[in-house]
Amino acid sequence: MNGAEAVIAAARDQGIEICFANPGTTEMPLVLALDSVPGVRGVLCLHENVATGAADGYARMTGKPAMCLLHLGPGLANGLTNLHNARRAGVPMLNVIGEHASWHIAADPLLNSEIERLTAWFGSKAVRLGAALDAGRVVGEAVSAARNNRAIATLIVPHDLQIAKSDAAPFEQATAAPPRTFRAQKAGQAAQALRTSGAAMLLGGDALTERGLRLAARIAAATGAELYCDTFFARMERGGDLPRVKKLPYFPDAALELMKRHTRVIIAGTRRPVTFFGYPGVPSHLVTDAQTVMLAEPGEDALGALAALADEIAAPEAFDIARAARPAVPKGPLDAAAVSAVIACLQPDNCIMMDEALTVGVPYFEASQGAPRFTHMMLTGGAIGQGPGTAAGAAFACPDRKVINFQSDGCGAYSVQALWTEAREHLDVITIIGANRSYNILNVELARAGITKPGRNARNMAMLDAPYLDWVRIGEGFGVPGVSVDTAGALARELEKALASKGPRLIEAVMT
Amino acid sequence: MNGAEAVIAAARDQGIEICFANPGTTEMPLVLALDSVPGVRGVLCLHENVATGAADGYARMTGKPAMCLLHLGPGLANGLTNLHNARRAGVPMLNVIGEHASWHIAADPLLNSEIERLTAWFGSKAVRLGAALDAGRVVGEAVSAARNNRAIATLIVPHDLQIAKSDAAPFEQATAAPPRTFRAQKAGQAAQALRTSGAAMLLGGDALTERGLRLAARIAAATGAELYCDTFFARMERGGDLPRVKKLPYFPDAALELMKRHTRVIIAGTRRPVTFFGYPGVPSHLVTDAQTVMLAEPGEDALGALAALADEIAAPEAFDIARAARPAVPKGPLDAAAVSAVIACLQPDNCIMMDEALTVGVPYFEASQGAPRFTHMMLTGGAIGQGPGTAAGAAFACPDRKVINFQSDGCGAYSVQALWTEAREHLDVITIIGANRSYNILNVELARAGITKPGRNARNMAMLDAPYLDWVRIGEGFGVPGVSVDTAGALARELEKALASKGPRLIEAVMT
Repeated sequence: MNGAEAVIAAARDQGIEICFANPGTTEMPLVLALDSVPGVRGVLCLHENVATGAADGYARMTGKPAMCLLHLGPGLANGLTNLHNARRAGVPMLNVIGEHASWHIAADPLLNSEIERLTAWFGSKAVRLGAALDAGRVVGEAVSAARNNRAIATLIVPHDLQIAKSDAAPFEQATAAPPRTFRAQKAGQAAQALRTSGAAMLLGGDALTERGLRLAARIAAATGAELYCDTFFARMERGGDLPRVKKLPYFPDAALELMKRHTRVIIAGTRRPVTFFGYPGVPSHLVTDAQTVMLAEPGEDALGALAALADEIAAPEAFDIARAARPAVPKGPLDAAAVSAVIACLQPDNCIMMDEALTVGVPYFEASQGAPRFTHMMLTGGAIGQGPGTAAGAAFACPDRKVINFQSDGCGAYSVQALWTEAREHLDVITIIGANRSYNILNVELARAGITKPGRNARNMAMLDAPYLDWVRIGEGFGVPGVSVDTAGALARELEKALASKGPRLIEAVMT
Repeated sequence: MNGAEAVIAAARDQGIEICFANPGTTEMPLVLALDSVPGVRGVLCLHENVATGAADGYARMTGKPAMCLLHLGPGLANGLTNLHNARRAGVPMLNVIGEHASWHIAADPLLNSEIERLTAWFGSKAVRLGAALDAGRVVGEAVSAARNNRAIATLIVPHDLQIAKSDAAPFEQATAAPPRTFRAQKAGQAAQALRTSGAAMLLGGDALTERGLRLAARIAAATGAELYCDTFFARMERGGDLPRVKKLPYFPDAALELMKRHTRVIIAGTRRPVTFFGYPGVPSHLVTDAQTVMLAEPGEDALGALAALADEIAAPEAFDIARAARPAVPKGPLDAAAVSAVIACLQPDNCIMMDEALTVGVPYFEASQGAPRFTHMMLTGGAIGQGPGTAAGAAFACPDRKVINFQSDGCGAYSVQALWTEAREHLDVITIIGANRSYNILNVELARAGITKPGRNARNMAMLDAPYLDWVRIGEGFGVPGVSVDTAGALARELEKALASKGPRLIEAVMT
């Protein structure tokens, strides 16, 4: 067994099942090890940001780390923005990078770079393998740390160590993650705060699982507290008989207006909410220090804290939850509301919704309140181009569930290469492009700033026209069949057709 | 005038004419300034790596920096690999990044990151604007430094400073770059070395300009020295009546074999050559210390040094240069030799060739020895996906010259978004995709390692089949008309057609 095989064997023994990759020459022993050490499935991605996005989606759906195999510093660099998003999502992941041979680095070959500068940028602990014999231990520690801390670990494996002999010393299973804890006095403080009228709860992370939502709903039923979720969440269970919550609005004026209504805001599983950008005259934080009761920080046991709070206030076990109605299929041309309504109306039971629709998707959250049970994932770090890769990763994780990637065109254009992996691996993903043919958020921001007639440059920077992207052609180019529609009726028909079959499909929903 | 306008005005006053951009909310004042402060043309790119690649191509052709306008850390992150390539090319560039408002950063909004960690990775000096009134001076210094050092400068401009009032204090023109120098004793050492038989010269950087090549040819005519150029050069003038040189082979065994024939190797405008990867048993450096005479390092005055050397040995002013013949148009199915021959046979006078064809393009250098005058650019840092953006940037720089982007399919798939900018801006670029439908270099490396029947994973990582990329569809999706060919005759016909018209075209050359 060589060092590369020891790395793959150790990753497999730590529960890694899949490797999203775009390898180069310095990773070839690791690629060969995927064959000689069975157990880890290799998946080629045509761009590293698809690989890292897929690993994020896989981790969100399974709770387990996938492996990314990336070529030197530049390969990692290409995957950075979805690593940024994955960090914000709080998922475990293992990056493995084939580095130049140790003895070759001093000569500064063209592809050479300081890889650790990049891992520092997205807050990943990087370990550089120093001896082939250590591969088992180092991989074991890295995967354990990733899983236990829901973090991204990066292992840099010089080529000479990949090909060096490495006894497959089995890694002693790392001790299980210490259970997350919560601070009991916080439950008491939250109970106290809930006794004032006009309290609210803001939920994120584990609080958006089924268990978390049911606990929060019990607390709300007992106290009348309003329930909110983060504007951008990694994963939320929704629909069916699950309790509903409101989503914190994106724009700070609307969010502040809502939050001002609440005397206290009890936060579980997420941070005190921050405006997406800093707007003059608007505070960075949407709730004040005085309003905030931090029941459970992101690293704490939000479920335990919610359960303790429910006990503390003797919340009822059973209560009625009024179910929302599904929207009717609208008629006529498409706008954000119509696209959102059609999807919310037709999405099947138990589907996975990757939602990087941004302005097109604003109406979707409310529209889908009455949908059957589904898992809702969003863009977590604001770095656009996440949807296609993350949807693909979710499809690998859950091959029996239909994945819908509800995607804005501007964001989607960043990661078109993911369509090829969908085609090659026959992933059951429907990509719905909400084609407003612009970076519409920029137009919205210009309008908010009172600029109704932008100059030539400002207009050009926001408009994806001249030429329009032809998404059907792009999809076909990468192997995914598609169709373009511009009415709600046609979107509904095509979505029904796509839902009736398996495998990747693309629908371009052209908005007026 | 606000800070954003002061930045744009200062950039314009420093000679910046074009801005390749993908802005977000935190860059909107800078975008508006492109309209209110006329003189810098804004060009939208659908991915930041297209923007940075375009700025590289623009700089290679003009010697001047272009500006990239990028959205926060993630926007810079997406553009990193072509910044890596640009650094290796030694071009000037100005990145401007709209940062969160200074007062907002501490709240760690979702898109927040430590931008300076990224600039450190590609060796760029980053300056964070500290006061709007300083904008003129800071931009002036940054552009001067970029131009004088042929380096990438990065300016981080917090949003609050973009909208703050800034008197447009004109920046005192920076003192011109101190002229590059060379060490006179090196010319003497080189002259001495050239008196031994079997000497060679390795040229890069400025030594590959017309003047450099003619000086080197005079020296070779006087001494019999063999002339070589770097395996990967940023820009080389070639064809017509220019002196020919040999290219250092990519694989180290062939390169070492060649270099061993030479008692001394005189190097001008480039580094002592390093193997692309570290191969067991092969040295990192292709010429030994003892062989090396470093006439001019990359930062030194290679042209002055060559001129001094030519004087030192009293090289003849005039001598015959045997011109190479153009290849005939081959017949039959396409392989790397046939694709290269067709292009070399038909490329028009004074065209710009961006060559990221890798294994498909190996035969091209020799095949094009007899072509009419042209400028040849290559992938400089090994980070694939450079060709499409860099070709676009060259087309902006030289609107009257035909640009051919000779592109391998694996590399091209990284940067398909550049096609949209070509279409939108009616750039005169012909993209020729050498479609071997694989990451062929990996197959070559496997074969070199004696692996003729790779396992499933290794095969899958190297093959771009199942499905094939349909480049005509991809081109059409982004607005560039295209055609697919699979014989040399058809490639020649379609290339002639494309050459006869203006504007972007794509030809997929499918190899058997």
